[in-house]
Amino acid sequence: MNQLDVLTKEEVFKRIGERIFPYQKNYLAMFSSWYGGIVTDPAFMLIPIDDHMVHRGDGIFEAFKCVDGKIYLLDRHLDRLERSAKAVKLDIPCSRSELIDVVKRTIIAGKEKNCLIRVFVSRGPGGFTTKPSESIGAQLYVVITRLPEYPEDWYSAGVSVKTSSIPMKPSYFAGIKSCNYLPNVLMSAEAEEAGVNYTVAVDEHGNIGEGPTENIGVITADYAFLVPRFDKVLRGTTVTRMMELAQELVKSKVLGYVGEADVRVEDVLRAQEVMMFGTTFDVLPVVFFNGRRIGNGQPGPFFTKFLKMLRQDMKDNPAVTTEVWT
Amino acid sequence: MNQLDVLTKEEVFKRIGERIFPYQKNYLAMFSSWYGGIVTDPAFMLIPIDDHMVHRGDGIFEAFKCVDGKIYLLDRHLDRLERSAKAVKLDIPCSRSELIDVVKRTIIAGKEKNCLIRVFVSRGPGGFTTKPSESIGAQLYVVITRLPEYPEDWYSAGVSVKTSSIPMKPSYFAGIKSCNYLPNVLMSAEAEEAGVNYTVAVDEHGNIGEGPTENIGVITADYAFLVPRFDKVLRGTTVTRMMELAQELVKSKVLGYVGEADVRVEDVLRAQEVMMFGTTFDVLPVVFFNGRRIGNGQPGPFFTKFLKMLRQDMKDNPAVTTEVWT
Ligand SMILES: Cc1ncc(COP(=O)(O)O)c(C=O)c1O
Ligand SMILES: Cc1ncc(COP(=O)(O)O)c(C=O)c1O
Repeated sequence: MNQLDVLTKEEVFKRIGERIFPYQKNYLAMFSSWYGGIVTDPAFMLIPIDDHMVHRGDGIFEAFKCVDGKIYLLDRHLDRLERSAKAVKLDIPCSRSELIDVVKRTIIAGKEKNCLIRVFVSRGPGGFTTKPSESIGAQLYVVITRLPEYPEDWYSAGVSVKTSSIPMKPSYFAGIKSCNYLPNVLMSAEAEEAGVNYTVAVDEHGNIGEGPTENIGVITADYAFLVPRFDKVLRGTTVTRMMELAQELVKSKVLGYVGEADVRVEDVLRAQEVMMFGTTFDVLPVVFFNGRRIGNGQPGPFFTKFLKMLRQDMKDNPAVTTEVWT
Repeated sequence: MNQLDVLTKEEVFKRIGERIFPYQKNYLAMFSSWYGGIVTDPAFMLIPIDDHMVHRGDGIFEAFKCVDGKIYLLDRHLDRLERSAKAVKLDIPCSRSELIDVVKRTIIAGKEKNCLIRVFVSRGPGGFTTKPSESIGAQLYVVITRLPEYPEDWYSAGVSVKTSSIPMKPSYFAGIKSCNYLPNVLMSAEAEEAGVNYTVAVDEHGNIGEGPTENIGVITADYAFLVPRFDKVLRGTTVTRMMELAQELVKSKVLGYVGEADVRVEDVLRAQEVMMFGTTFDVLPVVFFNGRRIGNGQPGPFFTKFLKMLRQDMKDNPAVTTEVWT
């Protein structure tokens, strides 16, 4: 903090360019409507501090992935982006086809066929109050990063979960993928402190909700695949797609039922299998919950089936994948 | 969105410099620990998009003012900043005296004796997940803007308020001045749409809370000055100071009681006077609440007394003011 000089803009430019860190190797490209273009130098992936997304979290986002050059579930992510926009009265500053074009062009600038795409729509710059009306207009930022790698043993040996002490978001806000993720941040921190992989929120009735950025689901003793009701948690694209794919197992009588339900902590502990669902990792088997073993403490057969179905779906189902390099 | 070129950093620098807008005339200076210095050119008041404050609202802030070269209630704002930091497990990246030094130097760079100071402490850059551990360290941003001017008739004729439909924050989060202000943003938008000056949240028991960024208080028919309990709302520095100053009126028997209480919507409608409290405007008289007139529909004598006491306090009470140019 001994650097309190007033900098010229040339000095600022130089300082920005010097802020090089190893983690930036994962940053491939960013489109910014503020710049009106794409930047690939991570040091210049910046945003005006008066954008209301910065000082109020007044923005929405989506995270989806591109696997072998194909975006998975793009339309569903953009559907959810539009629902979030509506809930916070934000106008996405371009049409859906323009947005898809920006996404593709930014991925191509990043040059990686396997990557994670984050689309942010912000309230925009123009003052520091809470008032949306002081903004000069919504902005679009699209950030492409490398796909995070998950440890192989999370899939082969399973992950641990515990219930969270962080109060659940009011239902209205739980359904919006906004930049107000402080409760989710505190849940992540709580998991790291407790030495578990994820924490899962619990409501005032003892029903479980979701992880910091992932859904949870259980296979009950009587072969139902149940997920907490979407009026209390974000409607995850992964778990939603899984519920659709799992209908095949209902047809073949391997599963009896698939649906939303009140899922209590006791139901989790009594389940045959418990799984987490999310865009980056697809599905993970939960083998410990609140320190107690789920089933025999090993990833179960439904997890194996589910993972296979999802991976197959993103690999070669043209109905839910979008080619980028065309 | 037809500008999808990949920009060199020199082009980015040029584009940033071209983003000049009238509203920026209010931006006087910004300190950034990321730059390691102060910038006065508004176009370069930027922040890395991977700072978790940007994508998760994972940061805390304070807003306080400098009047005639003196900062009002600095220590109390920094006390609250420290409480917010603790609640979200964030380490302020410098000592309090260093922080005060940064604040003063940034104000001086802004060259205005009357200004508003916003101090942001962010989780810092280093990845796009919710995990605090992926950040390379908390950052400090201090932004100095001109003091907003309030219409004279808000003081002379009063303001209108209505109850909000936006769900109240869970108590834990209401006490933290974080960048998760989306409920507050929606309350501001709601006020603008309804054509009132402010909306005020109501809890499930019918007790009122606070405005988007201001506290409310009432003078009851039996001369009590009551404010909603601070376990449901942010502990405003202005209303807290007002409650201290109002003790003088208790001593002189002009007021019977000053304190926190459950304040119901009916209590507001039955009050002699209703007021809003906040750093930027000090105190404002509420003359309409849910479309109904408060008292005789005119700013009352307590409002006049309160405003005078506050303005006097910030003008010449050395115990609560801090000279900047020393
Ligand atoms: C709160 C929350 N729940 C669940 C999910 C999982 O959603 P999806 O499967 O669409 O990634 C996310 C995604 O980040 C999330 O933020
Ligand atoms: C939610 C909320 N309530 C109340 C206030 C008023 O606090 P203060 O008097 O310290 O400005 C603020 C300040 O911005 C606020 O954000």
